[in-house]
Amino acid sequence: MLGSILSNILLVLGCCFIAGGIKYREQSFNSTVASTMSSLMTVASASLIIPATLYAVMSSDDESDANIMVLSRGTSIILLLIYISYLFFQLKTHADLFDDAEAQENEDESAQLLGPWAAGVVLVVVTLLVAICAEYLVDSIDAIVTKAHISKTFIGLILIPIVGNAAEHVTAVIVAYKNKMDLAIGVAIGSSLQIALFVTPFLVVLGWIIDRPMTLHFETFETVAFFLSSLVVVLLIQDGKSNYLEGLLCLGMYIIIALAFYVLPDDPGTHKPSLGGLFSGFGGS
Amino acid sequence: MLGSILSNILLVLGCCFIAGGIKYREQSFNSTVASTMSSLMTVASASLIIPATLYAVMSSDDESDANIMVLSRGTSIILLLIYISYLFFQLKTHADLFDDAEAQENEDESAQLLGPWAAGVVLVVVTLLVAICAEYLVDSIDAIVTKAHISKTFIGLILIPIVGNAAEHVTAVIVAYKNKMDLAIGVAIGSSLQIALFVTPFLVVLGWIIDRPMTLHFETFETVAFFLSSLVVVLLIQDGKSNYLEGLLCLGMYIIIALAFYVLPDDPGTHKPSLGGLFSGFGGS
Amino acid sequence: MLGSILSNILLVLGCCFIAGGIKYREQSFNSTVASTMSSLMTVASASLIIPATLYAVMSSDDESDANIMVLSRGTSIILLLIYISYLFFQLKTHADLFDDAEAQENEDESAQLLGPWAAGVVLVVVTLLVAICAEYLVDSIDAIVTKAHISKTFIGLILIPIVGNAAEHVTAVIVAYKNKMDLAIGVAIGSSLQIALFVTPFLVVLGWIIDRPMTLHFETFETVAFFLSSLVVVLLIQDGKSNYLEGLLCLGMYIIIALAFYVLPDDPGTHKPSLGGLFSGFGGS
Repeated sequence: MLGSILSNILLVLGCCFIAGGIKYREQSFNSTVASTMSSLMTVASASLIIPATLYAVMSSDDESDANIMVLSRGTSIILLLIYISYLFFQLKTHADLFDDAEAQENEDESAQLLGPWAAGVVLVVVTLLVAICAEYLVDSIDAIVTKAHISKTFIGLILIPIVGNAAEHVTAVIVAYKNKMDLAIGVAIGSSLQIALFVTPFLVVLGWIIDRPMTLHFETFETVAFFLSSLVVVLLIQDGKSNYLEGLLCLGMYIIIALAFYVLPDDPGTHKPSLGGLFSGFGGS
Repeated sequence: MLGSILSNILLVLGCCFIAGGIKYREQSFNSTVASTMSSLMTVASASLIIPATLYAVMSSDDESDANIMVLSRGTSIILLLIYISYLFFQLKTHADLFDDAEAQENEDESAQLLGPWAAGVVLVVVTLLVAICAEYLVDSIDAIVTKAHISKTFIGLILIPIVGNAAEHVTAVIVAYKNKMDLAIGVAIGSSLQIALFVTPFLVVLGWIIDRPMTLHFETFETVAFFLSSLVVVLLIQDGKSNYLEGLLCLGMYIIIALAFYVLPDDPGTHKPSLGGLFSGFGGS
Repeated sequence: MLGSILSNILLVLGCCFIAGGIKYREQSFNSTVASTMSSLMTVASASLIIPATLYAVMSSDDESDANIMVLSRGTSIILLLIYISYLFFQLKTHADLFDDAEAQENEDESAQLLGPWAAGVVLVVVTLLVAICAEYLVDSIDAIVTKAHISKTFIGLILIPIVGNAAEHVTAVIVAYKNKMDLAIGVAIGSSLQIALFVTPFLVVLGWIIDRPMTLHFETFETVAFFLSSLVVVLLIQDGKSNYLEGLLCLGMYIIIALAFYVLPDDPGTHKPSLGGLFSGFGGS
């Protein structure tokens, strides 16, 4: 999940800013929309830091695992409620703010064209498919890891998301090149928000229903990488303008994080059954 | 203290934004005032992170405790000086910026109606009363903890502040509903700043005078929660606009943090005589 | 290096804001330039946090040191590329944004008057001189440490940068007093960016060439101090306005950090051969 978010907000957004920045001197986008997305992104990253911090300060035993489980499930429900409010905000009460973006999106195959209920059903179905595919994916990765000299984390968090998000990536860069920055940002950040606020918490709740322990507790390094990326992106999009230098900053940040994951060894000893471990980088939106 | 700040900036502000957001599509407030408050809030949260980090990197012995004491006292004096500058800035040199808010506050029972000296005296007296009350409160909490199955931290950081800030809470929500957002933010964030920049450092200095060791060193988790809350609030208020979604984000963040404190066990072993421990959540402003 | 950055962004900028704020009620500067510099500063501080986090989560052995070395060198190259893009952005494609600042700088002895290539050569020469001087400096510090009761860290991170940056400091305060805030910010933040994005990564690459292990891994506390300072400064300059209260906040933050370094004991046991250790506070720009 995290890998997909990182690739969306840093790699896709960075390429959009660069593609647009080469053609246009400066591009501007709706700053209210950008600011709303920034706030949601910040809350999403904060909600991942809290279980990680809690885990760090508690001594590791069965009781603390149970506590983090309670926290993860509660947080997931709240994130789902926030996501529903966001859909309501975007589609009903403040739809005009997002109008430009939607008008542009009419040419594309966009979920926003569906009503809120239809979109909801589609999301649930897609998420289930994602969960099933992930199982097969995880099995096939083992074979690659043993052959090549690449760590599992790097494959899961960097390589798979790049392939998985290729379609979005191309779409976003093309619309950015056409100076439709609102749509490009909507695709890049909107799909990250979907994963952070909908897919991830939904999987935790699903794990709760099928009685499989899933938490929002990610590895320390993944949490820090996500928090820093969110912070950089929030600062970059907050002014409502973009240029190629901002794109290069996103891209540079992504390469630095990718490099860090590349040198980070797999450490199965500290591995725990969490979304971070099980499906950590599955792409798609 | 921290509990009161968290409840003010997340719960009260969140309710204000929601109450105002239900009636009005979008509310705006003076962004210079909001930006000044953001900056003060950031410095206040940074000044709490520094002793916590210092404590984490130093080996725990008597010398390191003495060092943190020196740092806490120095930081407290600087925070008090910043608070005095802020009062001077708000009441003397840049009073017109805050004029709208003050004009609105005339209808309420506001400390801004007092001159700077009278206000100063009132603050000192109130702080002393707070310190005395806290002693009785801490004693009575022990009884509750043993009866119910709730941790001390949760009572101190979540339950007491909600009760203690009830008056402000109601005032702030009413004025937000009347579209006087400047005043609502002034009440919610202003009182948090008062606690962070005046009450807390004043208690450390008071502890210095009566030779009782009090530091600005809070538990790791409390520091992280405060830092994240400040960051979310700073990003939300910085654009000078609010809507109900921003309110829901504040509220969601508060519930997540409350949940985290609920599952966080009391750990007397790592407890130290600090403001974080002794009075950690005493409300009131 | 870090000490010089901290002294530039907090002490010099704080003094500029205060000096300007005493004469003028509110000063404004080009917010696009400020926002570009904020973004660069955030990426620079994020790029230092990543190796520090990686180091914290990996067990300390030879392999992990080698991994951090790979990461540091890769990150350094990316930071150098970002710095070159920034020069290109500032001097070629978006030069008009920086025009006001440059017009003002004509009166001063400014590197911007040189072409990009000449400036590049000057930078390389100056950096080499810095590296040579630092060696002599480090030797002479040992004598001072044993005589006075001050820790090496404090001398390196606080005292030397104040002396080393004195020339810039005076220039920046004078131009701020003349209400040329764009230039003052350019001097204070521009020179910090130069150190963070050029001098530091260049030394890592130089260390690579002369086969001397140098990493971007700084001590935890230094990293946190840098990150917090960047965050405070980014929030302060982002609104494109300044007043004396913002200056006092910078200055207060600097004193708090200086105090923390003062009480932080030297701990040679955890010392590693890194830029943070070897040259940690060498001033100059």
